[in-house]
Formats: sequence, C-alpha cells, structure tokens
Amino acid sequence: MKHPPVIILVEPQLVENIGMTARAMMNTGLRELRLVDPRDPWPLGEVHHNRMASASSGADEILTNAKIFNTLEEAISDLNYVYATTGRSHDMVNRILTPRAAIPDMIGRSAQGQKVGVLFGRERTGLVNDHIVLANAKITIPLNPEFASLNLAQAVLIIGYEWYQSEDKTPDDYIHNGNSIPASREEYLNFYRRLEFLLDESGFFVTQEMRPSMTRSLQNMLQRAVMTEQEVRTWHGVITALAKGTTRKK
Amino acid sequence: MKHPPVIILVEPQLVENIGMTARAMMNTGLRELRLVDPRDPWPLGEVHHNRMASASSGADEILTNAKIFNTLEEAISDLNYVYATTGRSHDMVNRILTPRAAIPDMIGRSAQGQKVGVLFGRERTGLVNDHIVLANAKITIPLNPEFASLNLAQAVLIIGYEWYQSEDKTPDDYIHNGNSIPASREEYLNFYRRLEFLLDESGFFVTQEMRPSMTRSLQNMLQRAVMTEQEVRTWHGVITALAKGTTRKK
Repeated sequence: MKHPPVIILVEPQLVENIGMTARAMMNTGLRELRLVDPRDPWPLGEVHHNRMASASSGADEILTNAKIFNTLEEAISDLNYVYATTGRSHDMVNRILTPRAAIPDMIGRSAQGQKVGVLFGRERTGLVNDHIVLANAKITIPLNPEFASLNLAQAVLIIGYEWYQSEDKTPDDYIHNGNSIPASREEYLNFYRRLEFLLDESGFFVTQEMRPSMTRSLQNMLQRAVMTEQEVRTWHGVITALAKGTTRKK
Repeated sequence: MKHPPVIILVEPQLVENIGMTARAMMNTGLRELRLVDPRDPWPLGEVHHNRMASASSGADEILTNAKIFNTLEEAISDLNYVYATTGRSHDMVNRILTPRAAIPDMIGRSAQGQKVGVLFGRERTGLVNDHIVLANAKITIPLNPEFASLNLAQAVLIIGYEWYQSEDKTPDDYIHNGNSIPASREEYLNFYRRLEFLLDESGFFVTQEMRPSMTRSLQNMLQRAVMTEQEVRTWHGVITALAKGTTRKK
C-alpha cells in the first residue's frame, strides 16, 4: 500500500505558512502534518488560528490532525527513512536527490512497509546541520541558483506535486471532448467533400493547377483540429450559411 | 534559442499574489510578466507597492519590467501560441496538456522562433470561457480532484518548476562529497582489513562459523555508505581509539 510521506515543518515561524502548507498538502494528496516547536504556542489563540485557517483555504482536516512535537527527534521517531529538504550549499557528505527522483525512492520504501517523512526548515534559515544529520538523505529542488529561496509552502507543494504526478493517470496531451467524441472519419470526410463541392460551385478554385495544393492545405488544417461530431454538424451549418451568400440569395 | 514562456496574469486581485508570482518566476528562470487589468490601478500607490514588493522577496527585476494591459487580446497580440491554465471541468473541446507535457511543447515552439505565453486567471474564479477561447491549448495541473484550487502563485510555480527542470542538469540521485571525493577502493579496503584485524584481536568473532556472515554484513553496510577519503581517515581514528579500550590501557 502506498502511504504518502509525512510532512514535518521544523520551527515554522508564520502561521500563514502552516495554513498554506496544509492547502498545498490537500491539493496534492498528502495527509499527515507534524510541527516541531512552532513559534506560536499550540493550541493557537483565536487570532493566530484564524490567520492559519484563512491561509489554508479550507484544508482544515490536515490542520486538525496535525501533531505538535518539542523536538525533531520525537517527531521522526516512528519513521524508517527521512529526507531533509535543503538548498544546494552544504559541505556535508550526503545522498542528494531531486524531488523527481525522491518520489520513486519513497514509493519503493512505502511498498516495503517503511514509513517515510520529509523535513522542511524554518523560513529564512532552512534546516541547520543538526537537523540534517537526523535525516538519511537530502532533497534539493533544482532552482535558479541566483534566486533559490522558495517560500515554505511552495517547497511543500513541489514535493506534493511530484508525489501526486507519480500516481496520476491523466494523459499528457489529449483533446478534451466534453460530451461529444471525435467524429468518425466518414462524418469528417462527408463534411470535407461537401465543403470542396461548395467551393467548386462558388468558383473558389481559380485554376485547376492550384487545386491539389489548396485542397491538401484545407484538409491538413481540418485534420489537425480533430473535430467532434458536434463540431462537424456546426461547420456543416457554417458552410451552408456562407454558401447562401451574405445577401441571402434564394 | 530557448525563450521562457511569458507569464500573463488575467485580472489579478491581490498585489501579494503578483509579488509571490514574481518570486516563483525568479526561482524558476522565467522572466517576462504581463498583467491584464489588475484590480489595483497601475502604477501602484506606495502601500500596495510595498505589499507586493514584500511578497516578492526581492524579485524586483520581474516586477519593474512587468507590462500592464487593458485587455487580454492586447496582452497576447505578439505571441504565436498561448496556453490557458485551467481546472479540470470545462465542457469546451480543447487540447489539454499536463504541465510536464506542455514544457517540451513550448521548447519545440521556442526552438522554431515562436513566442509562447501562459495565461493564469483571477483568484477564486480562474479563467473564464471568453479568456480560454483566446488560447490555443489548455494546461491542467493534475491535483486532488476534491481540493484542486491552487493559489495563483503556486500555479505559476508549477509551470516554472517544470520549465526549469527541463534544462537542469542536476543528477537525480548522487552523493554530495563536499571538498572530498569517494575513497579509492584501496583506501576503503585497507580500512576494512584493519577493522577486521582489530576485531579478531579483540575477540569479536566468537566462533569461526559465524565469521563469514558477520564480515559480509559489516562490509555491506560500509560499502553502502560510500565513504570519502576524509571519512575513511576519521573512521581509522575511531577504531584506533576504541581498540585502546575505554579505560585507556597502554
């Protein structure tokens, strides 16, 4: 069974970021949030709670179930493998993965019954070395090296996004057909032949020499559009209307 | 030449989101921002400007160069191919791509000299059909269908993230060695043989039958760690110190 990684925010400073993290988690199918020594004491007072809830845009479920810990050691004690998200520049010797490579690693571990988690450091400073040595590997998001500081919730979103993509079955590139389906080739060709017939009648093909290249060009454009049955019907109406002439000849 | 897509925010309502968009663009190597009919009139007054700048965390360059348009038609007039980011549920017949598939599409167009752009709708409502028909294709980010509404800057970040990954050369999964390099196999084996020798001397191997499986187990763990030269030196010191015994025998 594929269990999503636990998200662990270490010393988060702004309740808005906790709320936005919950939102990003809900967006991407992550479920379990843990907070280590958040700046504002827990449970939050009403003002802070409202700011967090507002930033979460309705991800209450994540926030209600969030667990609070005094130390990172306690927060990760039940996990089998821990990833620390960091920027590029640490001189420690670590295994480093991109988010895209970390997800299959997590899925493999999860399939073995391991419980995995991802650490995110506090705003501005990120994770410090004392946190990083508690992790088994680092995840570094490839970003513009001259401007690599991500907002906390943005970093969580990238991990969650990669997680969600790994199991999503959406085709990469397709035509969405609403309530219709692509027209059969027969329906399409009936339309095209009628168009060509009406163009002949209207004197569109000035010379017979240009005819082959013109007809190929028209067909290519129409084929590229991959018309639905409904669209073929609509365009039958279009050419019918145009063929009547703009001054409504009988 | 690979030209990043132009980012076009249609009717953005909150200056904070414009600032966070600029930050996400800087993070991911995008450069050109256009705003269509932002709620707060441009140029911004001091209060709004400061809120936007603060949210951008220093991405001033993007904000200073941002262009403002009254209509979407004007904002996209020089572009050759336009993608509209939308949620899943529109009943129009469109080409729909995932962000991951859209990027190679953009790169291919860019390599042909086409200028491409990506539209993002206003907070809460997103792009409406009148905007979407001005685009050639849609991009839909696969997300939890029960909680699919992304913050505006988060949506921009996902597109930028995919863009940046497409040209980033970071290895997926590697050991970062700081200022050292992985030890040669000779250095490693010298260390391991010395460890085994000292373990023999200290009576670690209680029986000779268990010796092969124990030594294999020790070696497997050490190999998995891929020690650097510096680490081999450090661990030589560790076993030297331990071999002296904990009460400092001479």
